Amino acid sequence: MAQAQDIGIGLMGVGVVGSGVATALHEKAGRIEAHVGAPVRLKRVLVRDATKVRPSLPRDVHVTSNADDLLTDRGIAIVVEAMGGEQPAFDYIQRALHTGKHVVTANKEVLAKHGPELFAHAAEHGVSLRFEASVGGGIPIIGPLLSDLLANDLTAVHAIINGTTNYMLTRMAHEGLDYADVLRQAQHLGYAEADPTNDVDGIDAAYKLAILASLAFQTTVRDSDVFREGIRKVTAADFRYAAELGYAIKLLAIGKRVNGSVEARVHPAMVPLARPLAKVDDVLNAVELEGDLVGWAMFEGPGAGSLPTTSAVMGDILRIAEAVASGGRVPAAPRIDRVLPVQPMADLRTKYYLRLRAFDRPGVMARVTKVLGDLQVSLAGVIQKETIHADGVAEIVVTTHAAREADVQEAVRLLGKLDVVREVANLIRVEDTE
Amino acid sequence: MAQAQDIGIGLMGVGVVGSGVATALHEKAGRIEAHVGAPVRLKRVLVRDATKVRPSLPRDVHVTSNADDLLTDRGIAIVVEAMGGEQPAFDYIQRALHTGKHVVTANKEVLAKHGPELFAHAAEHGVSLRFEASVGGGIPIIGPLLSDLLANDLTAVHAIINGTTNYMLTRMAHEGLDYADVLRQAQHLGYAEADPTNDVDGIDAAYKLAILASLAFQTTVRDSDVFREGIRKVTAADFRYAAELGYAIKLLAIGKRVNGSVEARVHPAMVPLARPLAKVDDVLNAVELEGDLVGWAMFEGPGAGSLPTTSAVMGDILRIAEAVASGGRVPAAPRIDRVLPVQPMADLRTKYYLRLRAFDRPGVMARVTKVLGDLQVSLAGVIQKETIHADGVAEIVVTTHAAREADVQEAVRLLGKLDVVREVANLIRVEDTE
Repeated sequence: MAQAQDIGIGLMGVGVVGSGVATALHEKAGRIEAHVGAPVRLKRVLVRDATKVRPSLPRDVHVTSNADDLLTDRGIAIVVEAMGGEQPAFDYIQRALHTGKHVVTANKEVLAKHGPELFAHAAEHGVSLRFEASVGGGIPIIGPLLSDLLANDLTAVHAIINGTTNYMLTRMAHEGLDYADVLRQAQHLGYAEADPTNDVDGIDAAYKLAILASLAFQTTVRDSDVFREGIRKVTAADFRYAAELGYAIKLLAIGKRVNGSVEARVHPAMVPLARPLAKVDDVLNAVELEGDLVGWAMFEGPGAGSLPTTSAVMGDILRIAEAVASGGRVPAAPRIDRVLPVQPMADLRTKYYLRLRAFDRPGVMARVTKVLGDLQVSLAGVIQKETIHADGVAEIVVTTHAAREADVQEAVRLLGKLDVVREVANLIRVEDTE
Repeated sequence: MAQAQDIGIGLMGVGVVGSGVATALHEKAGRIEAHVGAPVRLKRVLVRDATKVRPSLPRDVHVTSNADDLLTDRGIAIVVEAMGGEQPAFDYIQRALHTGKHVVTANKEVLAKHGPELFAHAAEHGVSLRFEASVGGGIPIIGPLLSDLLANDLTAVHAIINGTTNYMLTRMAHEGLDYADVLRQAQHLGYAEADPTNDVDGIDAAYKLAILASLAFQTTVRDSDVFREGIRKVTAADFRYAAELGYAIKLLAIGKRVNGSVEARVHPAMVPLARPLAKVDDVLNAVELEGDLVGWAMFEGPGAGSLPTTSAVMGDILRIAEAVASGGRVPAAPRIDRVLPVQPMADLRTKYYLRLRAFDRPGVMARVTKVLGDLQVSLAGVIQKETIHADGVAEIVVTTHAAREADVQEAVRLLGKLDVVREVANLIRVEDTE
């Protein structure tokens, strides 16, 4: 057999992910060549400062701060984008696809904002675009969704795809701590950043949900289409009531096909304790997919970190490389061939948990019930504790049957105006299909 | 574009799985053609009795009881084997591969007994052999293992891959029932067969483990290489102690690469309650894979049933069909290119839980401890309940640090001979790496 031609890799970014990929390509070179049937070689690396010494990179790798060096190198078949952020990553990915290079990326933001557009570019140029690492770190999710579950009509995605908030909610549930305390804990442990906005407000989860929902339902769902509510308002009290009602509280990313449209929302949700998703704790991630044949399947694991993310990127590289080496068809970019509207949040129908702080006066419950009833929000249960706080305020928890979001929001507004109600302390959606 | 040529399917067996596949091919024909780029058509079906009327099959399908009708039909590109059992399925699969047909099968027994041999045949004839449905029903497991996690050196498989026994153990754990009671329950619900041997003695799980271990470690592990111990000896008492010690009891299928050899064993195991596998309840299946990059990932879902299994078979059919339609390389059969010995069970090193029934006499513990100590089995903890049964017998539970299986078995033999020991009631391995 003649010497097989090298498959050249151009790597953009050598941060946490990029350096893991560079190391894996180097250390596993023999194994990779045996599998692919040709050497897969890191040729050029794009960095901000090309003068900096990088002892982790093999000597024969050309380090540059000019993206054109990679994009115009005809010896590079696959560009691995590991820079993160929308720009210039989006621009580079586009240019790589246009010059006929396959692209592997871990970039959830670019995918969430421009995924379907990039898939079309890739298809047009007959190249591959893969991004397993963009959701759930090393957990295989995109692969199973697009390949193993291909025969299914997927109907729902329920996911815990932000490790930081799952860690925080787990600590709140198990230790009775409040939001501010667990945030400090998470920051101390390095799980949360100094500015935790991206995680606690659900921005990161919304990126990932946009990707999952687009693929699962083959329609364009952008991050801006996703309803977002973070975990800042969840308190220790909510966890106590949730446990009493048989629920865990999780920051869920939910995508559903409902009557020709798509639901896409990220918010704290009550999940029945017996459901596998409710048992996914600490920094773990899990994605549950529902389909007409499979019923459901769930994929769980650590959702971040250099090595797990490297596992996903390398898997994508190998899939492309083996097709290139064999002269076969490379894995096609996903097809987005439906146009389904994203349902306005006001039209959502789900169950709700409402926690009120009300003055302990006769007739309070009757007035609360009337507000809800007038708006067709039907009660499933009520918890009213005998404990009354020093200020004469008692806590009332109401759970509802499935109701319309707009009606429930109107009820919350009206309840807040009642003189007997001190405050509507929290409203949490209950993900428990009747 | 010219009319693309049909991709013909020959289906062997129209039982629970086969009829699901026939229905899905029919009902999803339009969607499948759009994806694959060519119609995928069921051409011939092999049944035992070709005279029986089968209203579920489309009219233009040729029904036969002669396998040669399928195997010699050059219009059939993919043979789907859904008969089950070793023979004649093994023979038919071999012949199909030899005549250049791709094969999709759900047959765990054939794969466990002849997998590596069949992979070699497939490679030799340049055809595909896929079997996602053989483990875990519709849960994507084989696909992620062979494709998405390809860059990993996989080091361990821990799996709950028998729904019947997981249901039984869950009921025992939650309701304090004994083996005989839950078996009756499971039989009543149709989860266990009249003769439950295949499930409760771990035979079914051993088939699946042989497949997973062969793929994960790229070496031949046959079902006969797998150590098997079923769940018949587990009692309500064991569950009480397990809970006290912080463990669940699961029938685990365990494969590991240890020092150049492979562990392959199916037995009841104590699993730390916080570990995701410990939370997989009822008839659910789950497979946890460990690798050098990914750390671990777990795949969970309903592990059986007509539609889930159909999902897996259809996924395999579609993967092959899209490669055939595009003239590309079909997915290659797995490579088994290592020769690793399977470690004799006597050499296993793990932790143990030992439950003894001993007479309540002074010096009992000293004598039990001496037997263990003489064999280098070091104690991690002891539970000795004050409750003494009417017959003067008390229960003693001992947990050990990691010890050698042969030594522990010898200790069990010697303990059983002590005059102060009435019986060594159970020995359960603890899967809790220090």
